[in-house]
Amino acid sequence: MAEKEMGLIWGSGSGPCFKAMVALHEKEFGDIKKTLISFSEKGHKGPAVIAKNPKGSVQMFSSDSPQENRRIRTEHTHEKCKSSSSVPTFNDGDIVVNESMAILLYLEHTYPNKGTRLLPSDPAGYAKVIQATMEAQENLTMKIMVKCIFYNMMTDEASRKQESFQKAIKANIEEAQKELAIWEDKLKLSDGDFICGKDFTLADVVLFTFLATVVRFGSSLGKFPALKSYYDRLRERPSIKASWPPHWSEGELADEKKILKGI
Amino acid sequence: MAEKEMGLIWGSGSGPCFKAMVALHEKEFGDIKKTLISFSEKGHKGPAVIAKNPKGSVQMFSSDSPQENRRIRTEHTHEKCKSSSSVPTFNDGDIVVNESMAILLYLEHTYPNKGTRLLPSDPAGYAKVIQATMEAQENLTMKIMVKCIFYNMMTDEASRKQESFQKAIKANIEEAQKELAIWEDKLKLSDGDFICGKDFTLADVVLFTFLATVVRFGSSLGKFPALKSYYDRLRERPSIKASWPPHWSEGELADEKKILKGI
Repeated sequence: MAEKEMGLIWGSGSGPCFKAMVALHEKEFGDIKKTLISFSEKGHKGPAVIAKNPKGSVQMFSSDSPQENRRIRTEHTHEKCKSSSSVPTFNDGDIVVNESMAILLYLEHTYPNKGTRLLPSDPAGYAKVIQATMEAQENLTMKIMVKCIFYNMMTDEASRKQESFQKAIKANIEEAQKELAIWEDKLKLSDGDFICGKDFTLADVVLFTFLATVVRFGSSLGKFPALKSYYDRLRERPSIKASWPPHWSEGELADEKKILKGI
Repeated sequence: MAEKEMGLIWGSGSGPCFKAMVALHEKEFGDIKKTLISFSEKGHKGPAVIAKNPKGSVQMFSSDSPQENRRIRTEHTHEKCKSSSSVPTFNDGDIVVNESMAILLYLEHTYPNKGTRLLPSDPAGYAKVIQATMEAQENLTMKIMVKCIFYNMMTDEASRKQESFQKAIKANIEEAQKELAIWEDKLKLSDGDFICGKDFTLADVVLFTFLATVVRFGSSLGKFPALKSYYDRLRERPSIKASWPPHWSEGELADEKKILKGI
């Protein structure tokens, strides 16, 4: 299938979209047609998405916009993939995939020898990388995104002032800090610059994009020197520079949204 | 690597362990050494786990036991896989994997032609199955497990009686019902007995094990005839019968724990 038949519909600041973008650039598909939709202007309901998802609304996580931060699923299904529609929506010709982890695995399965090899093929190497990838995806989603960032966003201002919320969010942030300490230790034990050794892999796509969100939400990573150094190095990687959420470059998050500034 | 060198440490009633068990049976590795640990007797801290995880405690989800229902991560890392230790803990010789989704993908990657083929190799077939697998894993974890079952379990008795909790859990259960309706529609659109067509795949391993938990927690699936028929058929599948959590066979859950009985 030719590159020109590929496409990605994505949104700025969405973690799943960020992951898909980095993987596409690593696989040398950075030049495919990319459609950036605006969450705040309800671009996820606009013509570009609807063209690929004629019956559907979208599934999304935009990490900056509480009022837009929702996962919308639909009982309608996509004509081609029989899946609910979403951003990121990736297509390779007629093949449509819209779960970020599925996009990553699809790209590596279908184009293993193009661009960066994101998953080793030998069993031991594969095991190491897929374990780190799934562990990052599961634990960082739950402990950083759900229990800190979304929990804070989803709670209204009055409730955020209540003691019970303050106590809960404090405990969650402490848990997030412990989770980051686990990844700090893993990085220190790595025998290379990346989380699974000397090569950039799928696990780095997942870990880095979460770390970038942690920094966006106020963490200096000051307590995690290995993560900080890793973040600074990867921040300059071409695939990551090319995938950086445009509105992140325009300015910092408002201070009251920086829920992770203490860690 | 010979089958005799494989092993699985698992716990009864843990969804991730259930998934690993089903996949192992489908791949004809049902006869490997399996060590069933007891959560209630703190078997996850016992000699069998410690032997493979010498420095670690465990990461677990036991869906029946609120007081034991926790994810314990450790700053110590496993000597071999440099991962925090957990159940399920699977080893294939020296290779150790302990995230359930990583175990499933590792088995299929390393032994594609053994037992049931769980992921098609052609790009379109692969895309369809990996999309459904990740969609089920992400959405059913969040909407059924986290927002209904665990939310109910983690809340103490006094708080469960408060209006705010009652309102929130009602909304979450409605969301869970909408999620199940999406899978009901997907099944109806399938051109075979399984979620992605005529073949049992990785997506069925994930979908079925969540459905079994939905039933365990009180749902009759009465509003979802396609899911009910799918559940009843797969319940008789050899890999699933062989993997059924032993304590589920001993008796039903106490009525007050059946948070999904209305749907």
